[in-house]
Amino acid sequence: MHTPTPTPQLIAFDADDTLWDNESFFRQAEHDLCTVLSAYADATTVIDELYKIEVSNMADYGYGAIAFIMSMIENAVKVSKGKIPSEAILRIIESGRNVLHMPATPYPGVTDTLRQLKDSGRYQLVLFTKGELLTQENKIARSGLAGFFDRVLIVSDKTEQEYRSLCTTSGIAPARFLMVGNSLKSDILPALNIGASAIHIPSAHTWQHEVIAPFTHPRLIHLTTFPQLLTIL
Amino acid sequence: MHTPTPTPQLIAFDADDTLWDNESFFRQAEHDLCTVLSAYADATTVIDELYKIEVSNMADYGYGAIAFIMSMIENAVKVSKGKIPSEAILRIIESGRNVLHMPATPYPGVTDTLRQLKDSGRYQLVLFTKGELLTQENKIARSGLAGFFDRVLIVSDKTEQEYRSLCTTSGIAPARFLMVGNSLKSDILPALNIGASAIHIPSAHTWQHEVIAPFTHPRLIHLTTFPQLLTIL
Repeated sequence: MHTPTPTPQLIAFDADDTLWDNESFFRQAEHDLCTVLSAYADATTVIDELYKIEVSNMADYGYGAIAFIMSMIENAVKVSKGKIPSEAILRIIESGRNVLHMPATPYPGVTDTLRQLKDSGRYQLVLFTKGELLTQENKIARSGLAGFFDRVLIVSDKTEQEYRSLCTTSGIAPARFLMVGNSLKSDILPALNIGASAIHIPSAHTWQHEVIAPFTHPRLIHLTTFPQLLTIL
Repeated sequence: MHTPTPTPQLIAFDADDTLWDNESFFRQAEHDLCTVLSAYADATTVIDELYKIEVSNMADYGYGAIAFIMSMIENAVKVSKGKIPSEAILRIIESGRNVLHMPATPYPGVTDTLRQLKDSGRYQLVLFTKGELLTQENKIARSGLAGFFDRVLIVSDKTEQEYRSLCTTSGIAPARFLMVGNSLKSDILPALNIGASAIHIPSAHTWQHEVIAPFTHPRLIHLTTFPQLLTIL
């Protein structure tokens, strides 16, 4: 392993599935939905149709747990051909609200690693996450991690333009910016594309919308656990 | 009329119902909901129960059109005691999506007034709005007004802390900050409370959650139309 060159001055961290488990709460809600809809369709049909609805709703609802609940409701009515009793819609909402209320408990070693990076005083640290504003704010508050970051930035999508803006508003050139995250598609690729370095730490679950083919890059390092950051920073 | 003292260096503008009509689209969706639910409850009951549900959901969903759709769905199931057919839920979602797709056409004189303020070069101009991130971004894009602002800031709630942060990140003391908006509760009062000046321009419709008793204040000016800003700035 080697330190990314040149030494970063700005490090941004993805939140969901990088600092805490997020995706498994979505998968649990999806599993509950399949149970509610089992009289009308098999689980594969429910999940395939749900994904199509999520993608078609993305321009209006964006990414996040509330968007997911809205798509589950639409899915339930469509897959059941209107036969699902409306009381069951409330059960789907309740199951979706478990996603909103996920604990956002930091993964092992995350809190201590962030503390050491902050205490070193060598980096600007930013939490950089996409999704729903209030949903993300609430998770960040529950995580107890907000105090380690110089800035928290919540965007509707992690476009290259947002990565450029993150560098500009931090007063740091992209070459001195390091992005850390679990998603090759939204954390790693756009950061590399603007000239930054990146560290990929894969998560146990990845939403199919975030999956792209693995790749290598001279400014990309792959780690297995979050605390390994301290071995290269 | 007189210019607020001292001369402002930073002017922030509320968006919904200050720059464009917003609330009447919510009221139209509410009217549609009452029609869908007319077999189960009278309009007053529907609207009263909807408001209670909106308030109880606020900590999870925040402010905005998607939050409103979620609360309308819950309202429809509860008011009908589960008797509403689930197909009708899709009609409620479609009606709610009309709110998401509102045109955000600037009120008369808004575009020209903002152009003159920008061209004067005398102020930092900020669009400062609360609500759902993507919903607000989409409306701002449709309004065609983004180019007049040095910065666009979308927050989940307009707290005094957010007003202070707006001043700090703009490098402007609250005494040199002027807030312009239609809501006494979320645009005017917190700005005055941090020591800023404010201009109130009432809108045709105000959501009951935003209504507070009218008041006067030495740093508050009331106008009737947006272009009147040019008579005092």
